[in-house]
Amino acid sequence: MKRTETDSLGPIEVDAQAYWGAQTQRSLENFAIGGQRMPLAVVHALALIKKAAARVNLRLGELPADIAGLIEQAADEVLAGQHDDQFPLVVWQTGSGTQSNMNVNEVIAGRANEVAGKGRGGKAPVHPNDHVNRAQSSNDSFPTAMHIAAARAVHDDLLPAIAELAGGIAEQSARHADLVKTGRTHLMDATPITFGQELSAFVAQLDYAERAIRAALPAVYELAQGGTAVGTGLNAPKGFADAIAAELADLSGLPFVSAPNKFAALSGHEPLVTLAGALKTLAVALMKIANDLRLLGSGPRAGLAEVRLPANEPGSSIMPGKVNPTQCEALSMLACQVLGNDAAIAFAASQGHLQLNVFKPVIIHNLLESIRLLADGCRNFNTHCVEGMQPDAARMAEHLERGLMLVTALNTHIGYDKAAEIAKKAYKEGTSLREAALELGYLTDQQFDEWVRPQDMLEAGQNG
Amino acid sequence: MKRTETDSLGPIEVDAQAYWGAQTQRSLENFAIGGQRMPLAVVHALALIKKAAARVNLRLGELPADIAGLIEQAADEVLAGQHDDQFPLVVWQTGSGTQSNMNVNEVIAGRANEVAGKGRGGKAPVHPNDHVNRAQSSNDSFPTAMHIAAARAVHDDLLPAIAELAGGIAEQSARHADLVKTGRTHLMDATPITFGQELSAFVAQLDYAERAIRAALPAVYELAQGGTAVGTGLNAPKGFADAIAAELADLSGLPFVSAPNKFAALSGHEPLVTLAGALKTLAVALMKIANDLRLLGSGPRAGLAEVRLPANEPGSSIMPGKVNPTQCEALSMLACQVLGNDAAIAFAASQGHLQLNVFKPVIIHNLLESIRLLADGCRNFNTHCVEGMQPDAARMAEHLERGLMLVTALNTHIGYDKAAEIAKKAYKEGTSLREAALELGYLTDQQFDEWVRPQDMLEAGQNG
Amino acid sequence: MKRTETDSLGPIEVDAQAYWGAQTQRSLENFAIGGQRMPLAVVHALALIKKAAARVNLRLGELPADIAGLIEQAADEVLAGQHDDQFPLVVWQTGSGTQSNMNVNEVIAGRANEVAGKGRGGKAPVHPNDHVNRAQSSNDSFPTAMHIAAARAVHDDLLPAIAELAGGIAEQSARHADLVKTGRTHLMDATPITFGQELSAFVAQLDYAERAIRAALPAVYELAQGGTAVGTGLNAPKGFADAIAAELADLSGLPFVSAPNKFAALSGHEPLVTLAGALKTLAVALMKIANDLRLLGSGPRAGLAEVRLPANEPGSSIMPGKVNPTQCEALSMLACQVLGNDAAIAFAASQGHLQLNVFKPVIIHNLLESIRLLADGCRNFNTHCVEGMQPDAARMAEHLERGLMLVTALNTHIGYDKAAEIAKKAYKEGTSLREAALELGYLTDQQFDEWVRPQDMLEAGQNG
Amino acid sequence: MKRTETDSLGPIEVDAQAYWGAQTQRSLENFAIGGQRMPLAVVHALALIKKAAARVNLRLGELPADIAGLIEQAADEVLAGQHDDQFPLVVWQTGSGTQSNMNVNEVIAGRANEVAGKGRGGKAPVHPNDHVNRAQSSNDSFPTAMHIAAARAVHDDLLPAIAELAGGIAEQSARHADLVKTGRTHLMDATPITFGQELSAFVAQLDYAERAIRAALPAVYELAQGGTAVGTGLNAPKGFADAIAAELADLSGLPFVSAPNKFAALSGHEPLVTLAGALKTLAVALMKIANDLRLLGSGPRAGLAEVRLPANEPGSSIMPGKVNPTQCEALSMLACQVLGNDAAIAFAASQGHLQLNVFKPVIIHNLLESIRLLADGCRNFNTHCVEGMQPDAARMAEHLERGLMLVTALNTHIGYDKAAEIAKKAYKEGTSLREAALELGYLTDQQFDEWVRPQDMLEAGQNG
Repeated sequence: MKRTETDSLGPIEVDAQAYWGAQTQRSLENFAIGGQRMPLAVVHALALIKKAAARVNLRLGELPADIAGLIEQAADEVLAGQHDDQFPLVVWQTGSGTQSNMNVNEVIAGRANEVAGKGRGGKAPVHPNDHVNRAQSSNDSFPTAMHIAAARAVHDDLLPAIAELAGGIAEQSARHADLVKTGRTHLMDATPITFGQELSAFVAQLDYAERAIRAALPAVYELAQGGTAVGTGLNAPKGFADAIAAELADLSGLPFVSAPNKFAALSGHEPLVTLAGALKTLAVALMKIANDLRLLGSGPRAGLAEVRLPANEPGSSIMPGKVNPTQCEALSMLACQVLGNDAAIAFAASQGHLQLNVFKPVIIHNLLESIRLLADGCRNFNTHCVEGMQPDAARMAEHLERGLMLVTALNTHIGYDKAAEIAKKAYKEGTSLREAALELGYLTDQQFDEWVRPQDMLEAGQNG
Repeated sequence: MKRTETDSLGPIEVDAQAYWGAQTQRSLENFAIGGQRMPLAVVHALALIKKAAARVNLRLGELPADIAGLIEQAADEVLAGQHDDQFPLVVWQTGSGTQSNMNVNEVIAGRANEVAGKGRGGKAPVHPNDHVNRAQSSNDSFPTAMHIAAARAVHDDLLPAIAELAGGIAEQSARHADLVKTGRTHLMDATPITFGQELSAFVAQLDYAERAIRAALPAVYELAQGGTAVGTGLNAPKGFADAIAAELADLSGLPFVSAPNKFAALSGHEPLVTLAGALKTLAVALMKIANDLRLLGSGPRAGLAEVRLPANEPGSSIMPGKVNPTQCEALSMLACQVLGNDAAIAFAASQGHLQLNVFKPVIIHNLLESIRLLADGCRNFNTHCVEGMQPDAARMAEHLERGLMLVTALNTHIGYDKAAEIAKKAYKEGTSLREAALELGYLTDQQFDEWVRPQDMLEAGQNG
Repeated sequence: MKRTETDSLGPIEVDAQAYWGAQTQRSLENFAIGGQRMPLAVVHALALIKKAAARVNLRLGELPADIAGLIEQAADEVLAGQHDDQFPLVVWQTGSGTQSNMNVNEVIAGRANEVAGKGRGGKAPVHPNDHVNRAQSSNDSFPTAMHIAAARAVHDDLLPAIAELAGGIAEQSARHADLVKTGRTHLMDATPITFGQELSAFVAQLDYAERAIRAALPAVYELAQGGTAVGTGLNAPKGFADAIAAELADLSGLPFVSAPNKFAALSGHEPLVTLAGALKTLAVALMKIANDLRLLGSGPRAGLAEVRLPANEPGSSIMPGKVNPTQCEALSMLACQVLGNDAAIAFAASQGHLQLNVFKPVIIHNLLESIRLLADGCRNFNTHCVEGMQPDAARMAEHLERGLMLVTALNTHIGYDKAAEIAKKAYKEGTSLREAALELGYLTDQQFDEWVRPQDMLEAGQNG
Repeated sequence: MKRTETDSLGPIEVDAQAYWGAQTQRSLENFAIGGQRMPLAVVHALALIKKAAARVNLRLGELPADIAGLIEQAADEVLAGQHDDQFPLVVWQTGSGTQSNMNVNEVIAGRANEVAGKGRGGKAPVHPNDHVNRAQSSNDSFPTAMHIAAARAVHDDLLPAIAELAGGIAEQSARHADLVKTGRTHLMDATPITFGQELSAFVAQLDYAERAIRAALPAVYELAQGGTAVGTGLNAPKGFADAIAAELADLSGLPFVSAPNKFAALSGHEPLVTLAGALKTLAVALMKIANDLRLLGSGPRAGLAEVRLPANEPGSSIMPGKVNPTQCEALSMLACQVLGNDAAIAFAASQGHLQLNVFKPVIIHNLLESIRLLADGCRNFNTHCVEGMQPDAARMAEHLERGLMLVTALNTHIGYDKAAEIAKKAYKEGTSLREAALELGYLTDQQFDEWVRPQDMLEAGQNG
């Protein structure tokens, strides 16, 4: 069953069950590209905007109470997820996101009209442009939705996930604060550290990433809404921009404000580029963490084997009993994806022309994907890898004892050059440092005991 | 309803309706990351491998006929798409793709056992490892599936789509071979070209991209299968590698061969990096094409307005009657995505360790996404933009007449310096070239007529 | 003339004129790669560290006054640029920067020994490791130098340059605050803006970028120094880390502090990844600015031609009188470079292993190059393009008058659908909006005058 | 001492010693950005074009013999490197490379005029535009120079360097063809391989990269020359394009031909994007090789320690006797750079507008830098790392013996599940496979001897 909807290009057939109208239908037919739908987070953010706009328009006398009420009711249903199947458009549509904005306008109007007893769809009593989109343009609504969706995902999903992972690692770090082991630089044996110290670096790296992400948020809280078509705010009543930003802040609980310059908010996406860069910082840290843990967990017999990662599943379809660092693998793969997404975002954001950047959907698609991957990745990695990992203290002790770089402690006693001579001799002859040192006569057995003590090498000058 | 499946880690509950076994179930529970499923193209390629392996194993005496037959029957069902819902694993799993390989092994075994009357799932009479995975490892099967999936997508989907777009542009180019217009360099007016010539550049750019893609295929046709766990081929019978490559070539119709070095085929993905680079070449060309057409179509009153792009949908939710170059926007957005995906692929491919690269799922996910986007994009752009676009000959003529760079034709008659003087005078005074030239006395009216003829400036020295 | 220097690998011949020692010489011979030298900014930062370390070591009783004095004197000479030719090592050396750290240690020792009357070079009385490098490792000194060099370049060079460009554009924006012109979205004619508003977007975009850069600085101010070999601070006296951070803050005038976690400061480079991401934000904004200005300047006869960019040089070797937007081209080319450099930095920063990231030189090379390019680019663009550009008010007026999107103002009076009908009619028939509106009978001539006034469309709802 | 030169913008002072003219001087003054000069390889390629053009113009009657002879003589001096200091322009100039083309035109004219006895510089008897640039535009000359410079660098420098490194590794692979060791997948112990097989993967990876690079060359051999200003060939005589391509092929010894579509050759750079993609393939392979060797060389006491890399220099300024895998570090750093450069190239190449891409200098700068880094890197790595590395056979044997994945050989005898049980038991109890197997009673001591033989696990099914 079909019904006819119309727009300025004329009539078009729409499935009778659909709430959407002519413009959604045209987009469906004109953009058969890929399968990635416009993220629901964007759709819901648009619905939130429609609700907020209805309220502000009502207050400012732009809409009558019945129309505003119908819009808010339909928007609430969308926000409750009742119409998620009504937003079939793909990312690869018009670069302003106009078609998804119209999709939301049409579904809200279409449902409102149904509620009003006029049948599903159509333009009366609620018109998708004149009423639902009142005082708005896609050009300000869509970037506003991008900011809302991104800010929410960071705030609700990513920051807690980072905290969870950092907390999990910090707990392990505290648990093993005194477990001394070999440090390694250039992948080569170096002077001792504790396992707790080793893990503390990860927490600090995550902290840097979190700071970067938090520092990127204030600009994301600045909303384009109120700029309408080109940034001037044409067709929006005086005060609309600030009023709707306040309304959106109220509805969302996030400190949204009106962007100081609407022209920039439509034509550039610097705040999201900065956020993507901060996400990349997190990806870089996660790649390092995943790499280190799989390296420490390598073996079990022919690797470093200092850490046992949880055996979550059989590792090989051909090698029986093999267990692999699969959580590290998933985490590092998604880190690659985040770097790729960042490149796509920056490229897209640089390509605005004059009063509009028309790469909006690809930007928000990549940004939300990165946020989701990072958030899921942090949580999953903590649960399935960090929490269950266990150091092999015996193996660590064995590595530590045999290490040659304990010789570094001798620098301040006999100088770098003689210390180097000892280390090289021990390496060449396959002996211990002590043997080499005594043979060279650079120190006594007692001095060796006194000077070369791993447990004294752990907290020297790093702190004040 | 649940049933119990087991693997080397012990028993685990599985939905009774599912065909999969313990390892698929563990992956489902351990990797709650993102929503991107392992592409069905990879799943189907794995099923093709299982079918081919069953045949080869039968021939080489590795499997009895009944087991081989059951495997082939179940694999055929998977290939026919009958079990697409049985492959729920996400991209962000183990980096070897082992879990998806086991998913296919388990579903085929699970279905085969059902066919054999032993109930859904389980390991008898058909065992997922000992029979379905016979003479294989995930380490060689998964990269083989990556190559098969990529080669098929390029061959069946992308190359025809490029041809379609190139053909559509070539047709427009031929149609307007004689339509003279202003050329532009640095976005500034330059000497004349025809609209047909302008479009011919796009065809040539697509041709370069297609050549790059075709040149990348031979390495993709080289398959890892037969290397098993580390490249040595342990547990595969002599002759298996060549035999299965031949079988896969036969089944697929593509010229697959056995990779000359299996160690490289497991631990590196150079062939796919090269292919991704070639896809990027295509994306770069498409970005240029999309940008040019929207530039030529800009206006209608305050832009270049030399080309009218099809009006497929209303362009603005606030500006009535606006029509936008939405197809150019979709195409250029996906070009950004392809560049980002390329970055993710190269990064991932560089991160192999020793005998295995464990970034396989993220590589093939991005590669197949890029191929799909490019193929869909080319076709969609041709249908909805290229075919319907029309030059505005009057506008072109107007631009041409007023152009100052026709002065270039005078170089060979009066020299660059005097010609420059004429152009600068005309620009400064807002007059025509002819007026300026005559006023300066550098040539006669008649000479101007003879020397400055746009139609003579179109095919000078470019060809031999 | 040669002299012999020695290190733990034995003796090696060094040019007698050189101040450097054995390790610098070995690096020179072992790394014949590319031509990019370690940036002098890093060398100077290392020299500043040596000076600060000498002071702190003196205070803490680690070095005698004469040795400390000699080190400081030689370091001051390096800081004054007197020995810039003594640092010949390339970027493509050891990934810890050890060789450049040793280069600085050796040159300072070599010069100090000369000052002490012992001839150029050598290890007495001042030893490059035991004295100049006292309480330090390359592993903490080099990342400290990276942070110092980056912070200085941003602070001294980049931030002023951004301010200069933003100021130049803001001045033009203010000058043309009332010059009404056509806005454009999707490159298509849209509703009116002023040229001042159009330019104000650029200022706001630069402001976002500057905010991102400033937000990245606090983490860059955190220094690794004091962590020595692996982060524990072995061989540095208690209090060294805080003391040298304070000394470096004092010497540089920048608010350097000791990094809270030295393990992260050696093994990760998140603060620099975040900074690189912020630089990318700037590059993205500059790309947009450059693209817009060349688009507005396109023509002179067959383009938009709304802005005249300064004619700084002849534009073509073959087309006489041609003037091109060359400053836009340089700026956009360097924006591409900054995006590429960002990719290199993030990749490199992700590749640390355990207690050390050994991609330090490539990170700082790219970061400093990006900072320099952006700073030079901003200044150069302001001087040679922004300051001299002039709008063509007549052309702008012509475009404005003919525009169809003025129809948008009718939405609130007659609704979107009727307004669309008017615009489409005018477009199709090549007439004016007024003519079409009257013909359709949707409003009177007087209403048109009242409702369609570009100057009323400029500051509607965008501000509160 | 200054002299006055003039161009269409008027007179300008030039250093009297300089050969260049007004346009070079203006670029010097207008582009104070960065320090990267236009690569000399491009300058020399332009000089080769000028020489070839002079010859072809003479043959086609476009230039008199004396002028052509003067041009060729001066061009030969440039080609001999006698005037390398006369090309001071930076990369960050006009995006068409016009200024560098004019720099070459001016220097050749300026020197030719000196030879002709008319003093240095000037425009008579040899005019930089009318004679040196005869039948050319920067728009076709510069991309031709890009292709020539890139093709030469690949052909003369990179391909031999790859062959050198591949040869060095192949030699080591052959030398250790029978040295059995533990294979590793997921960084975890796997089934055995030989060290020769492990190294053979590197050779195969390099081979894939080389194939990709060679496959990219044919498109690079296609030259834009003859297209002049916009691709039509205006002002070039009939036959010029083919004639100069042949002349350049003759002069260079490389199979250059005239590009079939000049419009694409000016406005797009697909052939160079493809080449950059192929360079990235090489970088990806080198990253893997460098990472593997440093991993195998890790230790000496607490790492894998299966390979001893040459000790080329002391590794640490604080840890005496430390030796680091510095060659791996340099190689992997430059691989990062090549990936970054590739991103810059693709971005830049996508940004052409209509008849010209004006990102040419940044493209060729990055491309030539990547080629140089890769070529130097391959050679340096072979000489200073590959040639001198030595396996530690005892360590390899020790790892092999203790490995649990030898159990894989039992799959075909007792099935995957029982084999897994054995491996898990041995791992859990810290015993050998044999002990676990016998205890479980799955096979006899004799069967173990017969079935579990590492030397039988090396060449099973991988080859036909």
